[in-house]
Amino acid sequence: MDTTGFAIAIMAAGKGTRLKSKRPKVLHEIGGQALLLHVIAAAKTVVAADHIYCIIGHEADRVRAAVAPTGVQFVLQAEQRGTGHALQQVKAYFAETGASIPKHLLVLSGDVPLIRPETIASICDLHLREHAAMTILTAVPDDPTGYGRILRASPDKPEVTAIVEQKSLRPDQLNTPEINSGIYCFETAKLFTKLDSLSTDNAHGEFYLTDVAAMLVADGERVVAVKADSVNEVLGANTIAEMMHLDAAMRLNTAKRLMAQGVTIFRPETCVIDAAVTVGPDTTIEPYVQLLGATTIGTDCRIRSYSVIQQSTLGNNVTVRNGCILDSAEVSDGAILGPYAHLRPESRIGENAHVGNFVETKKVTLGKGSKANHLNYLGDATIGAGVNVGAGAITCNYDGVHKHQTIIGDGAFVGSDSTLVAPVTIGAGAYVAAGSCITEDVPADSLALGRSRQTTKPGWAAAKRAASKKS
Amino acid sequence: MDTTGFAIAIMAAGKGTRLKSKRPKVLHEIGGQALLLHVIAAAKTVVAADHIYCIIGHEADRVRAAVAPTGVQFVLQAEQRGTGHALQQVKAYFAETGASIPKHLLVLSGDVPLIRPETIASICDLHLREHAAMTILTAVPDDPTGYGRILRASPDKPEVTAIVEQKSLRPDQLNTPEINSGIYCFETAKLFTKLDSLSTDNAHGEFYLTDVAAMLVADGERVVAVKADSVNEVLGANTIAEMMHLDAAMRLNTAKRLMAQGVTIFRPETCVIDAAVTVGPDTTIEPYVQLLGATTIGTDCRIRSYSVIQQSTLGNNVTVRNGCILDSAEVSDGAILGPYAHLRPESRIGENAHVGNFVETKKVTLGKGSKANHLNYLGDATIGAGVNVGAGAITCNYDGVHKHQTIIGDGAFVGSDSTLVAPVTIGAGAYVAAGSCITEDVPADSLALGRSRQTTKPGWAAAKRAASKKS
Amino acid sequence: MDTTGFAIAIMAAGKGTRLKSKRPKVLHEIGGQALLLHVIAAAKTVVAADHIYCIIGHEADRVRAAVAPTGVQFVLQAEQRGTGHALQQVKAYFAETGASIPKHLLVLSGDVPLIRPETIASICDLHLREHAAMTILTAVPDDPTGYGRILRASPDKPEVTAIVEQKSLRPDQLNTPEINSGIYCFETAKLFTKLDSLSTDNAHGEFYLTDVAAMLVADGERVVAVKADSVNEVLGANTIAEMMHLDAAMRLNTAKRLMAQGVTIFRPETCVIDAAVTVGPDTTIEPYVQLLGATTIGTDCRIRSYSVIQQSTLGNNVTVRNGCILDSAEVSDGAILGPYAHLRPESRIGENAHVGNFVETKKVTLGKGSKANHLNYLGDATIGAGVNVGAGAITCNYDGVHKHQTIIGDGAFVGSDSTLVAPVTIGAGAYVAAGSCITEDVPADSLALGRSRQTTKPGWAAAKRAASKKS
Repeated sequence: MDTTGFAIAIMAAGKGTRLKSKRPKVLHEIGGQALLLHVIAAAKTVVAADHIYCIIGHEADRVRAAVAPTGVQFVLQAEQRGTGHALQQVKAYFAETGASIPKHLLVLSGDVPLIRPETIASICDLHLREHAAMTILTAVPDDPTGYGRILRASPDKPEVTAIVEQKSLRPDQLNTPEINSGIYCFETAKLFTKLDSLSTDNAHGEFYLTDVAAMLVADGERVVAVKADSVNEVLGANTIAEMMHLDAAMRLNTAKRLMAQGVTIFRPETCVIDAAVTVGPDTTIEPYVQLLGATTIGTDCRIRSYSVIQQSTLGNNVTVRNGCILDSAEVSDGAILGPYAHLRPESRIGENAHVGNFVETKKVTLGKGSKANHLNYLGDATIGAGVNVGAGAITCNYDGVHKHQTIIGDGAFVGSDSTLVAPVTIGAGAYVAAGSCITEDVPADSLALGRSRQTTKPGWAAAKRAASKKS
Repeated sequence: MDTTGFAIAIMAAGKGTRLKSKRPKVLHEIGGQALLLHVIAAAKTVVAADHIYCIIGHEADRVRAAVAPTGVQFVLQAEQRGTGHALQQVKAYFAETGASIPKHLLVLSGDVPLIRPETIASICDLHLREHAAMTILTAVPDDPTGYGRILRASPDKPEVTAIVEQKSLRPDQLNTPEINSGIYCFETAKLFTKLDSLSTDNAHGEFYLTDVAAMLVADGERVVAVKADSVNEVLGANTIAEMMHLDAAMRLNTAKRLMAQGVTIFRPETCVIDAAVTVGPDTTIEPYVQLLGATTIGTDCRIRSYSVIQQSTLGNNVTVRNGCILDSAEVSDGAILGPYAHLRPESRIGENAHVGNFVETKKVTLGKGSKANHLNYLGDATIGAGVNVGAGAITCNYDGVHKHQTIIGDGAFVGSDSTLVAPVTIGAGAYVAAGSCITEDVPADSLALGRSRQTTKPGWAAAKRAASKKS
Repeated sequence: MDTTGFAIAIMAAGKGTRLKSKRPKVLHEIGGQALLLHVIAAAKTVVAADHIYCIIGHEADRVRAAVAPTGVQFVLQAEQRGTGHALQQVKAYFAETGASIPKHLLVLSGDVPLIRPETIASICDLHLREHAAMTILTAVPDDPTGYGRILRASPDKPEVTAIVEQKSLRPDQLNTPEINSGIYCFETAKLFTKLDSLSTDNAHGEFYLTDVAAMLVADGERVVAVKADSVNEVLGANTIAEMMHLDAAMRLNTAKRLMAQGVTIFRPETCVIDAAVTVGPDTTIEPYVQLLGATTIGTDCRIRSYSVIQQSTLGNNVTVRNGCILDSAEVSDGAILGPYAHLRPESRIGENAHVGNFVETKKVTLGKGSKANHLNYLGDATIGAGVNVGAGAITCNYDGVHKHQTIIGDGAFVGSDSTLVAPVTIGAGAYVAAGSCITEDVPADSLALGRSRQTTKPGWAAAKRAASKKS
């Protein structure tokens, strides 16, 4: 669609008093991201960031800081005196900055986060096709009670004759099913003309944008409406419970999309999957899994329950057993993780490598086919291919002041419960005896020991028991 | 409300045959507590414990033992011959003990656990205001089929003309929506008069309390009814499936209450939160979290998924990563736990301290800013501020007979994989080398080593491999 | 019921294009098992395996390999040209092999996995009683739109007059509530006669089995229908989302069955319980538990959240704390596991024994009352009764080439952080000092040490700190 001449204003100035929160409403998160960032992301699919105007007010600095990286513009609404007042600030902003006024202005709500790019496009599309002064996005909820209602000239036609608030509905209008979403597109010049005529002669003493519709209709201008496919898309979040509802809806949508692409997701409503996640077909995701951020998973993997994978890349045929935590990790084809493996940032797990239970890795490269299966801490280490890291072996990467590197060559065997004091290098094919503390480099193919010879005192335990019984 | 003159009888004598359980019905647990304890807790908001009479019968001793700490009185109903029979035992109890008879007797069911104090108060209130002989709590479920139905003189008036069982309903009464909850308030003297006239001339050969309503109406006494706000409140639990439904309802109520107070709870229906839990605003609770017992959590915390926090106190800005288990722990502001930290009773974690993955603590004080981040077992230890406990370091607190203390001073560094054999003290600022076994006190600012010097045998590993290939 | 003369054909040749999967549709899994295996299991409750004919086509070899162990017969439908075509292959199979033709042929769908034995029996039963040529299993879903509809001579009678596809319904038939499930029983001779008359004169150019119904009715043969108790039973799985729905339904059925037997299952819809699992009464299962395969659990156990128990046997009074993973383990009465214990195959945990947090066992016998409570790896070990395995103690069972055994006698004490290098035997009542590396057998009642004596360098740490500040 051609959206030349369009700009987007996003209402983001409100406090959200009913949330009982210090955080401004539009910075509350669902689907892993602030409400406002969802709306900006949808807006950016239609116009460039420098044509998006966030109207900020409550905790303006905090909101600005949170969304500035998106490149949008900011309009300050210092006092919050209604939706009409918000757009008066936009008009003033254009006047003050001398920025060129867009032909069409789309108005979104920063707390209506499930709005889809397709829906925004269909508003713009109808707006242009109908040469409308104002185009209203509407919806048909199960129960319209309490919402402002859209009256149409005819059910089949786009023309709107009025937006009527619940309390002003006549008895014969009470069942009107179509509600106003608060999302609009305007011909900017006509909007700006009317903004100055808005009054605060209402119960809350605010300037209401809905009054513009009545003025335009009175002038004989075209006001039209288009219905959203789903009610969730236009639902705002006034309470935390409502936000949580939208969060679940957003993530279930993602799970459904993945299932339609050939991913098996057991109990899809129990998984927490962010919108940016991609998963290959024939991968199975068990219940209670979380896939967060820009995580990418290949085909034929199995992700078992209670695992949380964030901002990570997994190849094909990877098995993630129960309860693994991955953060910014890379895992190659055929690797097996867990249960209860913890891969911290910069963990790079090679093809067919194994990281087993109660093992933590951080800034570690583990080579092809290598294994660290039991109770290891591996940090700041480069480990070659075909290495066996025994149970309980630990890299001591921190001396209290600095971090140091451990390097382990291909085919080395690191015995159980050994302690590798970095900086240290274990050569290829070398063998570290169980229970050793290794403080010096071990040449390739060597054996290194760092443990005491065993001594035994016959009868000592029996004598001690006898003594402790006497006492 | 003035509840002088009120006493409460709670029906708790039944077996609950349909549960297929050895445990008496009223001791089955929902919301982390026995059914009967929920009812007693609600009753105690209205009258003192010594005015609450639990009518016990099946496994009377077991029930008595379980609820005796609440201070309620017990009336034995040795045989279970119906609700009327149960109150005959209460009458007999007053006669035998000479206890003064309360003016009003409220009758609750020990297996109807979601009854709210507000509802009990509204029953008493209506009872007094209407000068009623009997006040009935009613409800309007989606499907009333099978329940005893309340017939009123007029839909708007409180007067009840009859309680009619399902099988006795006339065709024109089948759609009567209001059901009898089995919860009543009586003028005690009038109740006691009628109890002797009850007959067992019915299908089950039992004495039914509902027959008292008919007798009182026949005498021209006022019998009135009040509706509960929610059906869940009057639902009994006759099967385990029904109990599980009430459990989920009770805990979802708690989650909703917390959300209304500014707590963000993702997928609130998946969390298990006991009624006594308090959480500060702007704390985020991820899905699948369990907050049990009298747990208190401050503001701005984040509790990640799969964590279970029981009977613990957390300050503000605490992060609990995935899969942590806390039992009777205290965690100060800014601390970071987990993932997979296990804090057992008497764990006291200082401000900004870290307890990391696969770490267990028990009877441990960890000072401000100290860290124990990887694979530690810390038991019976007092650890100062600014201490670094390396990966895999362990306190040996048990010698097979006694437990002993480990004391670590401020700013000490405990190297990885070291073993501290208690009783032992590591002085402030001391340094324990990695892999050391420490059996003697380490003075402040000293270095302690307890490990062997490394020896290396060049070529040994290569030779061994060659030999094993030959064999 | 007498099912002599019955055989069963199962449609299993389809690809399932809408699944977007390489795996053939009938091998997708729900309830822990391939769809087709569920159907075969139900079929085998009615007839012997050698009277069950799986009609395979797409990826025939893969399907055959997956279900061959059940003992069923296979009929190849090389091209997939409709349900009628599938049965033409069965007819040809009998002709080619000379196998005796069964009197009655029941036709099931390999992708309709919730079909119950009771329902199959009731089809056969009606079929015989009504002397029917064809008996149709039907259902009454909430919304029948899109399904083929069953027209009956009279609502109360079994006779069917027609099966009508959605698009052929007359306006007055649009609300017909009863749908065709695609599951039928035929008098084989009459079916086989009609199969040759089927045509492909329809939109998809396929041979449809539903056309046989019309032919039989036209001949004056009896075609009858029987309704399934539940719609889920006849639902097919054409998309992954539909499969996931059936998976949840199947597992919830299992949870409900267990609750009716006296098992307390909190949030039953969140548990993943396979159909073959048995659990004794008065056992409590917390939310988010998974019981998989042929797992058996006794009475009075408590299985805490996030635990996954597969193919294991637990006695009575066993406590499984949060996050335990059991695979093919045996756990005796009164044992306590976890949290986060990982029992791998051939773990045998004795009466009242404890396996604690972050402990892994594999091929291990742990005797009565023995404890391994913290951060242990125990593999290939036989451990007696009353043994205490200290925190962090590890068996080194692998030398890089072979696995070796560790044997620990009754009442031994294995100190914390000790390393037992197998093969090695610790005698009964022996005592291994903390931090020891044990490479030689320890006689009964002896003390074994394998650690260095501690040395201390006063002031070293202070000096090092001073130096590092300077640098």
